[in-house]
Amino acid sequence: MAKQKPRTLSGFMELLPRRQQQFERMAELLRQSYALYGFAPLDTPIIEASEVLLAKAGGETEKQIYRFTKGDSDLSLRFDLTVPLAKYVALHYAELSFPFRRFQIGKVYRGERAQRGRFREFYQADIDVIGDGKLDIVNEAEIPAIICRTFTALGLERFQIRVNNRKLLSGFYAMLGLTDRAGDIMRVVDKLPKIGPDKVRDLLTGEDTALTGAQADEILRFISITGSNTQVLSALEEYKGRDGLFDTGLDELNTVVKYLGSFGVPEDKFAVDLTIARGLDYYTGTVYETFMTDHPEIGSVCSGGRYDNLAEYYTDKQLPGVGISIGLTRLFYVLEEQGYLNDAMNTAPADALILPMTEDLSPAIALATRLREGGVRTQLYTEQKKFKQKMSYADKLGVPYILLLGEDEITQGKVSLKDMATGEQTLTDADQAAARILAGLAAAREAAPIREPKEG
Amino acid sequence: MAKQKPRTLSGFMELLPRRQQQFERMAELLRQSYALYGFAPLDTPIIEASEVLLAKAGGETEKQIYRFTKGDSDLSLRFDLTVPLAKYVALHYAELSFPFRRFQIGKVYRGERAQRGRFREFYQADIDVIGDGKLDIVNEAEIPAIICRTFTALGLERFQIRVNNRKLLSGFYAMLGLTDRAGDIMRVVDKLPKIGPDKVRDLLTGEDTALTGAQADEILRFISITGSNTQVLSALEEYKGRDGLFDTGLDELNTVVKYLGSFGVPEDKFAVDLTIARGLDYYTGTVYETFMTDHPEIGSVCSGGRYDNLAEYYTDKQLPGVGISIGLTRLFYVLEEQGYLNDAMNTAPADALILPMTEDLSPAIALATRLREGGVRTQLYTEQKKFKQKMSYADKLGVPYILLLGEDEITQGKVSLKDMATGEQTLTDADQAAARILAGLAAAREAAPIREPKEG
Repeated sequence: MAKQKPRTLSGFMELLPRRQQQFERMAELLRQSYALYGFAPLDTPIIEASEVLLAKAGGETEKQIYRFTKGDSDLSLRFDLTVPLAKYVALHYAELSFPFRRFQIGKVYRGERAQRGRFREFYQADIDVIGDGKLDIVNEAEIPAIICRTFTALGLERFQIRVNNRKLLSGFYAMLGLTDRAGDIMRVVDKLPKIGPDKVRDLLTGEDTALTGAQADEILRFISITGSNTQVLSALEEYKGRDGLFDTGLDELNTVVKYLGSFGVPEDKFAVDLTIARGLDYYTGTVYETFMTDHPEIGSVCSGGRYDNLAEYYTDKQLPGVGISIGLTRLFYVLEEQGYLNDAMNTAPADALILPMTEDLSPAIALATRLREGGVRTQLYTEQKKFKQKMSYADKLGVPYILLLGEDEITQGKVSLKDMATGEQTLTDADQAAARILAGLAAAREAAPIREPKEG
Repeated sequence: MAKQKPRTLSGFMELLPRRQQQFERMAELLRQSYALYGFAPLDTPIIEASEVLLAKAGGETEKQIYRFTKGDSDLSLRFDLTVPLAKYVALHYAELSFPFRRFQIGKVYRGERAQRGRFREFYQADIDVIGDGKLDIVNEAEIPAIICRTFTALGLERFQIRVNNRKLLSGFYAMLGLTDRAGDIMRVVDKLPKIGPDKVRDLLTGEDTALTGAQADEILRFISITGSNTQVLSALEEYKGRDGLFDTGLDELNTVVKYLGSFGVPEDKFAVDLTIARGLDYYTGTVYETFMTDHPEIGSVCSGGRYDNLAEYYTDKQLPGVGISIGLTRLFYVLEEQGYLNDAMNTAPADALILPMTEDLSPAIALATRLREGGVRTQLYTEQKKFKQKMSYADKLGVPYILLLGEDEITQGKVSLKDMATGEQTLTDADQAAARILAGLAAAREAAPIREPKEG
């Protein structure tokens, strides 16, 4: 028979089993972390009617959409989890209770140009809190705590959450009489870490933005306010009383910073950063970005912010919210590239492999059943292979314990338990074997999927 | 602004939060159950190159495919998890260890005609064991144990796994000289539960199948062998020695039945059923179907079998395997329709809702942080609403505990804990509150997502 060459499309992540275990563990920890903050899991279709999904889209996004017809239907694959959330909340408004807190971890699709580290199918892991008409500022203050706990649970230690406030920025540009050009200016300022202040000044006074030198200097002075959170906030006091929106933004920022300690966010994990604006016009209050301290070049690994109108394309209801998103597939790719995945995790499919040494397999099967009832992930190996090949199989899978069951053991009501890490072999009974396996793996079971490389 | 009416496509399941929690719990229990048997999680792309995905497909399946082009690429959405598994194993053959045991829970797509209870996007939950060249019969004997433990974990009690063997059937038809027509005959026999033996005989002797009356009678006699497993197996002994394939099939069936007890499968959960063939020609050994005792009309809720060539369209390697699949979305739909979902499950997004009664929210936030560190899923409610509205919010979400924190409590270093089920309110401290909440919810946390309606 002629064979079809198997292949996986470029831009689509497909992992080998041990890596997949690490990915699954990350997803599980995200679910647990989000749930701890009272977010409910949500799942929505990957396919939506194009006129619904693209009600808002345009420009770059629309070009990347996977869009097609099936029968009479014009369909598209979701490109993020925010638009489906907006649809969901507008559609089910009457059946939901607000604030509505949901998390969603799911695949999204963007037909980007294929290149290393860019994915066309990737997981996003989002949380959002949606209010009905209003949403209290404390929800914005809570977000850094969620980011902090989540990345800590994953095993990341060296990261920082940077926060700014869009009202503060808009108010500041209003003081300069630059409200109309605020969007353009923010896009230029966003480039500061990449191109430096001199080039930012050139762009601001260049023909596209066309500011005066004095205006550009004011902006550069503003965004160069750095230091501890207290220092930044007190420097901002200087600007107070000149613009209502600015003052509201500063109040909000003060509130967010004030509650950090109570929310359990360590000082060094958080910084007010006036250069952060987030590209989208959609945000209207606190905005967040999260950076890996040793890899700023990767960009933000968790971003989001406060918005005023989640679902304005679908409903007249005003639905303000705050949310963040982790690009999980890209994060995983980056972690692997940088050697951040923790190989001390137990990534074997089973905790124990039973090797029966008798023709009648009933005792070995009964042992497997007993171990499984005790919570030990157990595989029974009954293929006709040489002993050496069986051990090599266990080794390749990384199975931490082997149980040998021959006539001698069966007669004595015992099993031989071999610890693959130490090579030690002991004669014990089934229940003790289960207890020893579970105790021996407790640390590996709790191991975080990320381990930062030691410095030096 | 003109609004786009929000809608979800028909044939696409989208659940409200409490139902979603039940669905998630089912998926979590499936993952746990499959992992206990040493299956590794796998994830593959939803989109594949059409020439890869459709290497084997044809007829009905092909018509249902979501197929489209993007740029120069001819793409299709996967319609099951078996073809992607075949591709994966063929592609990564050199990097895998065999037997390769994987589970996968993922969405698949079929553009079926829309009707109640039929889904175009649905989850399948599959396990497969793939051998390299050979695969021991014990793997086939283990499958009923996995099905049994999985459904029991979900909370289903009244179900039965029915098993047959394709070699036994093929051998039987060979005895009658009907090997060439075995496929057609099995398709007719498959209708027995729906149309009864008389109509089956009519069809068998009718022009399509064109058997003699004697042949039809032999077949009806064979498939009418029923009773306990021992009775069926001993009735089959009569046919022994007339066809090699039949004898092999009977040996395999005897082995599967022999090991059931050791695998922990109760007698009443399992039956040899000679009418089961499974439509697909693909199967070559043991085949499985699983029925809800009180709802046979739903058909099999978990099916599969042994096959000899997983990936023959991609590779010359012979990769035999055995696998089963649960149509999770349809199962969930049926369970809901039949009133089988367990409302005693805790489906609230949070275990505890904190209602702060002071202007400074620091103590309430610190309380939330402490509860979360103790493992209590906690939501802080800070919206400006009347007390009654806050309680109504808790009620609607089904949050089981409320924590009230006013000046009095703060001064005393206490909190008021209200148990929403009993209405009881107690003054306690944060750690005791966490302990009481976790203890109070232990049962609800362990609750199975399925609860069978009481009879009568």
